[in-house]
Amino acid sequence: MADAPGALPGEFALIARHFRRLAGPGALDLADDAALLDPPSGRQLVLAADAMVAGVHFLPDDPPETIGRKLLRVNLSDLAAMGAAPLGYLMTTALPKDLPPDWLGRFVDGLAADQAEFGLCVLGGDTVSTPGPISLSLTILGSVAPGAALRRAGARPGDSLWVSGTIGDGALGLRVLQGKLPGDPGGHLARRYRLPEPRLALGAALGGLARAAMDVSDGLVQDLGHLCRGAGCGAVLQAAEVPLSPAARALAAGDPALAGLCLTGGDDYELLFAAPPGAEEAVRARAATAGVPVARIGTFIEGPAEVRVLDAQGAEMALPRGGWSHF
Amino acid sequence: MADAPGALPGEFALIARHFRRLAGPGALDLADDAALLDPPSGRQLVLAADAMVAGVHFLPDDPPETIGRKLLRVNLSDLAAMGAAPLGYLMTTALPKDLPPDWLGRFVDGLAADQAEFGLCVLGGDTVSTPGPISLSLTILGSVAPGAALRRAGARPGDSLWVSGTIGDGALGLRVLQGKLPGDPGGHLARRYRLPEPRLALGAALGGLARAAMDVSDGLVQDLGHLCRGAGCGAVLQAAEVPLSPAARALAAGDPALAGLCLTGGDDYELLFAAPPGAEEAVRARAATAGVPVARIGTFIEGPAEVRVLDAQGAEMALPRGGWSHF
Repeated sequence: MADAPGALPGEFALIARHFRRLAGPGALDLADDAALLDPPSGRQLVLAADAMVAGVHFLPDDPPETIGRKLLRVNLSDLAAMGAAPLGYLMTTALPKDLPPDWLGRFVDGLAADQAEFGLCVLGGDTVSTPGPISLSLTILGSVAPGAALRRAGARPGDSLWVSGTIGDGALGLRVLQGKLPGDPGGHLARRYRLPEPRLALGAALGGLARAAMDVSDGLVQDLGHLCRGAGCGAVLQAAEVPLSPAARALAAGDPALAGLCLTGGDDYELLFAAPPGAEEAVRARAATAGVPVARIGTFIEGPAEVRVLDAQGAEMALPRGGWSHF
Repeated sequence: MADAPGALPGEFALIARHFRRLAGPGALDLADDAALLDPPSGRQLVLAADAMVAGVHFLPDDPPETIGRKLLRVNLSDLAAMGAAPLGYLMTTALPKDLPPDWLGRFVDGLAADQAEFGLCVLGGDTVSTPGPISLSLTILGSVAPGAALRRAGARPGDSLWVSGTIGDGALGLRVLQGKLPGDPGGHLARRYRLPEPRLALGAALGGLARAAMDVSDGLVQDLGHLCRGAGCGAVLQAAEVPLSPAARALAAGDPALAGLCLTGGDDYELLFAAPPGAEEAVRARAATAGVPVARIGTFIEGPAEVRVLDAQGAEMALPRGGWSHF
């Protein structure tokens, strides 16, 4: 606040020191008022934004390296759900003034690693101070072939319901990190909470095949409800078919409530999608090519937009709540 | 948090009730994972993001109607500084759970008014809860003819320095609202603090004429330093030529420190730009067509990237600080 005219004040030095190394073509070295980008020709743009607040979306003592990566991956997961490929992102950070001195460097290290892994760069953003908890916001920009975007609406009665990867790891990992659950010797669940895996290759592979898709962020059952409302029909979810990781299976075996938590807890960032009858082999082939495991977990049915969750004996399960909501 | 599967939980009902009415084409009713947009053909994309935190960028008791509008206008001002036209925006809101019941409706009312005024719509976003102050982030998307974007770098020694509108109103308006300054009988200064005027028509009109441009957000002197660093030369700012509103002039006449505050205080969102020698008439003609007053306030000079501020007698002014910085 005591900078002489002409000197670079703290905010700009901080951007130069930390964020500039993340800047890609179009970002103009983060030194202009805005980024400048030639849109990829013959493609539609896909845009999504997510916010994360310390203590709400991540733990205040999470490693700084994983916090930015989680925010980036959550947004990449939105692109995956649309079948889109990433182009770049803008990020705003509201940071307390008493952050540990190495926090920002480590935060940016994590982002740099994920930029290399997913092939995108920062286009712009803003860095401000806050008297409250760390608050982050990220807008992602992607592209898709015209008309090829996967949408939430489109499932029909008789379609099969599929999910990628495993469900429940993120919700269990959060509780492990909070000390509410024992176990997780290999750190699998904590890692899944902190670093979700955006299913970009699978989303791209499902174009022209899946009738509807979304990513599971707020809990499998609740998010399936969104697909049902988009379709104007119901769905039956076979709980025993929902894929669990060995770590999740070990915990759920000892406590039936944890099996319910897997279905409703959220933070999965797996793809949930509908495929037409007879497409089972095609789905499995495309998923194999994308290198992502998928499982058939239910069926869309005629009727109101409701989700019925059945256990291995075909009995309706009572679940504690539909999923995560902020309000 | 006690929603039955299939019911719309609070967060989604809130988006449906408040934000959906802001959604434009491409936003897919805010019901999908991302927005889908055909980029305007033959144009470059222009992207910027800004964050605002209650108590830092706006006053916690500012009318909710003006808070979203200020964030939108600050971003529109970045587009203006690039000579770009708005396409749409994404916004994330981190909101405390104890907001007054009418807050969000009034916040969205303000955004709706500005969407109509500036001809753009929301494309997407996210709404989360926070234990801290209201934290907002907005990413704006615009477009410009290829190669026509105004940039910060490009001024040359001998170029004239120009600014639009009036300077200092925002900084004075903040102090009036904080009770630190008397006056402002017509409410002009407070209004300028809460509702800056993005100079979109002027920015568009300066394409091909201005050699460098930016918007004044962190203080005239500090921001002029950015133009100097971009140009690799210095600038002389004639303080007496800096346009003040009648309200600002009345306050500054009674307190020389307030004249300094006008030059360094920030929150102006006027365009600061360089024009080549001999372009004075062209600048005035284009500004008149755009309906935006402009004033010539200095000159770029050979030498290091430093700003010299001279008073009406040609003596160098000592200013308390260069401008606003968060860190």
